[in-house]
Amino acid sequence: MYDILQTINSPADVKKLNAAQLNTLAADIRDALFNRLTKIGGHCGPNFGIVETTIALHYVFDSPRDKFVFDVSHQSYPHKMLTGRKAGYIDDTHFKEDSGYTNPEESEHDLFNIGHTSTSISLASGLVKARDLKGQKHNVIALIGDGSLTGGEALEALDFAGSEIKSNFIIIVNDNQQAIAECHGGICEHLNELRATKGKAQNNIFKSLGLDYIYEENGNDIQAMIKVLQKVKDIDHPIVLHINTQKGKGFELAEKNREAWHWCMPFDKTTGKWNVTFPTESYTGLTTQYIMQKAKQDKDFVVITPAMPMTAGLTPDLREQLGAQYVDTGITEEHAVAMASGIAKAGGKPLLVTNSTFIQRTYDQISQDVCINGNPVTILLNFASFEGLTDVTHLGIFAISAFSNIPNLVMLAPTSKEEYLNMLNWSVEQKEHPVMILMPGNAVTSRAADKNFDALNTFKIEQQGKKVAILALGDFYQRGEELATQIKNELDFNPTLINPRFASGLDQKLLKELQQNHQLVITLEDGILDGGFGQKVASFYGTTNMKTKTYGLNKEFYDRYNPQELLRQLGITNEQIIADIKNLL
Amino acid sequence: MYDILQTINSPADVKKLNAAQLNTLAADIRDALFNRLTKIGGHCGPNFGIVETTIALHYVFDSPRDKFVFDVSHQSYPHKMLTGRKAGYIDDTHFKEDSGYTNPEESEHDLFNIGHTSTSISLASGLVKARDLKGQKHNVIALIGDGSLTGGEALEALDFAGSEIKSNFIIIVNDNQQAIAECHGGICEHLNELRATKGKAQNNIFKSLGLDYIYEENGNDIQAMIKVLQKVKDIDHPIVLHINTQKGKGFELAEKNREAWHWCMPFDKTTGKWNVTFPTESYTGLTTQYIMQKAKQDKDFVVITPAMPMTAGLTPDLREQLGAQYVDTGITEEHAVAMASGIAKAGGKPLLVTNSTFIQRTYDQISQDVCINGNPVTILLNFASFEGLTDVTHLGIFAISAFSNIPNLVMLAPTSKEEYLNMLNWSVEQKEHPVMILMPGNAVTSRAADKNFDALNTFKIEQQGKKVAILALGDFYQRGEELATQIKNELDFNPTLINPRFASGLDQKLLKELQQNHQLVITLEDGILDGGFGQKVASFYGTTNMKTKTYGLNKEFYDRYNPQELLRQLGITNEQIIADIKNLL
Repeated sequence: MYDILQTINSPADVKKLNAAQLNTLAADIRDALFNRLTKIGGHCGPNFGIVETTIALHYVFDSPRDKFVFDVSHQSYPHKMLTGRKAGYIDDTHFKEDSGYTNPEESEHDLFNIGHTSTSISLASGLVKARDLKGQKHNVIALIGDGSLTGGEALEALDFAGSEIKSNFIIIVNDNQQAIAECHGGICEHLNELRATKGKAQNNIFKSLGLDYIYEENGNDIQAMIKVLQKVKDIDHPIVLHINTQKGKGFELAEKNREAWHWCMPFDKTTGKWNVTFPTESYTGLTTQYIMQKAKQDKDFVVITPAMPMTAGLTPDLREQLGAQYVDTGITEEHAVAMASGIAKAGGKPLLVTNSTFIQRTYDQISQDVCINGNPVTILLNFASFEGLTDVTHLGIFAISAFSNIPNLVMLAPTSKEEYLNMLNWSVEQKEHPVMILMPGNAVTSRAADKNFDALNTFKIEQQGKKVAILALGDFYQRGEELATQIKNELDFNPTLINPRFASGLDQKLLKELQQNHQLVITLEDGILDGGFGQKVASFYGTTNMKTKTYGLNKEFYDRYNPQELLRQLGITNEQIIADIKNLL
Repeated sequence: MYDILQTINSPADVKKLNAAQLNTLAADIRDALFNRLTKIGGHCGPNFGIVETTIALHYVFDSPRDKFVFDVSHQSYPHKMLTGRKAGYIDDTHFKEDSGYTNPEESEHDLFNIGHTSTSISLASGLVKARDLKGQKHNVIALIGDGSLTGGEALEALDFAGSEIKSNFIIIVNDNQQAIAECHGGICEHLNELRATKGKAQNNIFKSLGLDYIYEENGNDIQAMIKVLQKVKDIDHPIVLHINTQKGKGFELAEKNREAWHWCMPFDKTTGKWNVTFPTESYTGLTTQYIMQKAKQDKDFVVITPAMPMTAGLTPDLREQLGAQYVDTGITEEHAVAMASGIAKAGGKPLLVTNSTFIQRTYDQISQDVCINGNPVTILLNFASFEGLTDVTHLGIFAISAFSNIPNLVMLAPTSKEEYLNMLNWSVEQKEHPVMILMPGNAVTSRAADKNFDALNTFKIEQQGKKVAILALGDFYQRGEELATQIKNELDFNPTLINPRFASGLDQKLLKELQQNHQLVITLEDGILDGGFGQKVASFYGTTNMKTKTYGLNKEFYDRYNPQELLRQLGITNEQIIADIKNLL
């Protein structure tokens, strides 16, 4: 098994193979993909589809002298196998050595740590610029998918490359006719037209931007790809090489259902069944139910997502049911946020859903297009938790720090099923405020909750006690609850337990009242401390005798951590916090 | 004077005029522009160029039923004059009533408060969506300039409109062949080609995206514009109306020098001389000198700007001198930041310059493309101060809050000419850290400064004292100096004065040492308090007996304020702070 792949220790070894061996290598790579993916999961369809292109790239070009930049880099597994990292795929004991993305710490063949879309052309154009300033001569190759091409950063870079770069630059558009879900946008339809005409359609967008263009329909044929890559190698100007590939190629289930197999959990190769049990109730599931019900009741309600329908559990059939009340804008976070502002201005009720890490694209749009205008847009963030995605490029720990400090934005941090749904509904219905809601990252819990949040920044005292007040924000509320019980057991007094509910402002009246019979205020939040909630509380008490201690994450790019282990390291355990309290009282 | 304009109280009055009267109205509007601009300044070229189109828009369409969205909205003065706000232009006592941008608080004819580029198509597409959901029938018109069209948000929206909108939507591309400086990017060259062929060029980018397209070369001819607008009115699908206009039309100086007259201070109409004296030495001027000198010495050094060369004083001749060491990426903040990361990765020394308010577009690129990768990019922000731009859309008070909490980013806040230049040079030369430098917003001062900042987060004690420690950050350092003197005079002790230098981290050792003989730490910062520097300090001392008090701005969208008056309101005066100290000691 892996007969050819076993011989590959660097790209130089790929160049030694004949055509038949190259094809065997492709089969080996797919076996290796199965080995890793069935056991630990990861990005599936993107990697199966790019096998032949990757082999051809390493056959024709000379990495690391020539530079490859993979967009999102979720399709870089074959590249890793060919650049000294095959063990991470064929030897189960080495799985953990490789991240799911390109990573300069792993190899000189990886230029950047990438995980967000639409960045490869920009990053690569910087490599081009530096090469030219230094008078060097290598090839720079950016690979980008059709889905990623709709992102503003990619479009800005294409526009730039078309007129401002006059030297070698090869942009490979890997057209597999799919984003995570189906593609949306004029470019995707244009690519359909280009494929249908074998690249000869009128109104070629790349040519209109000043770029040279060439089409290769056999992106899953190694020899065809070698031929076309040899043609563009050492070219003296920017060119778009548009290739047609099949997402999930070689894995029948993934070929047939491209959306479901974009990414996978560990699974059984034959049946395709994922070896994982999902909880019967989840905040994502509650979101789906809310959306479907609300849409039926209210024709002004519209769900917008920049290409992330599944983060709200919106399967293809549900999207179909939603009809005009569902808008997938494509991978266009900026446009999605500004469009939502327009909808709200004109009396619609927009709910925008995506992942916490991707909304980072829209700091300015939230500030300018939405918040300065005070339009009632609801932005719902999934995976806004340290317990969600743990890859460094997908962390959900920055949302409070990044967005809670934007004026006019109401940030809500629900603590139970009832509170979550009530907040969602209040936000969608009210007309005064832009709102961001942090979907809880923990297990669903149930508890009575208010329905109206018009009185901004009113914290809720869930247990009145003394000496110590615990402000436990959002999905760290349950930790606060447990801590309160533990304090009662160990220190023999009832602390006050507060559910702040609002992450974007302080309940000054309540905080002042705490001064009467409390000596210490503790804050717990699921995010980095810098710029977050606890620091606002600490600052509020700066001129008083109240002691404060903030618990949360450090300002750090954590990568592939164990969440519970991280909490221990940070001292966010009942044991440590109670020890701290003893010290401070 | 203003014979026709005087009769216009609403768009209905425009519709009553004959062709000759419409032309007189255009002349009146230009007189009114001169009246306001010569006396209080503002956006010049964009407004002179759009007079005829605006008249035609109000003649043909029916605002506010039909909806106009102006990109940046710096060209909305003629629109304001025709929608009940002429007094703000022809009556000097009313100048202050109108902002320089569209503003829903002024008129129902203004849909959004806009000041950043590239947003109009997105915002308008939201109006389209809500209209369609509600079954309404009006026209939605987005106007966008050729410069603004290169921005990612605009490109995302164009792509979206091309395939996802199937109803009335009129996108007017106002092609005046200029951004603030000259246009950059493939789209600009493509527009040149479209103009040269009267819209018949091969490879029409708008058509490639699925949009209908029509060209009108006489954008400064009212009758021609009326005719073409009547043609597209009530259209049942999205169309791009590409019009050719002359920036600065009717003001000879502005026609000839489009960059210099994009925006103006009060000026003499005949000579064009601005009625303003600039200080002989400014931080912008120092930046220009540094850039020109550094570029000569070091061929790896490259200046990048997303269309804001003048914010670093880079005039056309200096840009010419810089040659390949100068890159104007067009209005593409995201691409510019990611490209800088690529340059740094490949051994170049990129210095990216723009205004604080515009870098907000790049929270994600700074985090993902730059900081996760740890590439040594220097981002230099002008107008990162409450004393710079006071329009709500251009505030410089959010940079510390927005960016200082991103891991790996070193944020430097210089306090003197020497420190500023040393920080710039250290940052450009070092290879370890992404750096953001806040260009001081106050007058240039001179003081000896360190040259090396490798020891991150080391604060500098400028005066050792007792009882009270003043941490005076960046361009608020001088306020701290004055405060220290005043404390000595009034309270008869020397406080400690500290120049933090780093806005993105704390000098924990120094802060601990302060506990020995200080009871109060005061922080002063030029930005909002929420998420800022002072709250970090307050949080640090939360478990101690040290009192802290933070001085800075509130989390608020201030608009057209008097900076000194604002400081008084916020209690940031020596008098108030000393009163606070007396209370707290």
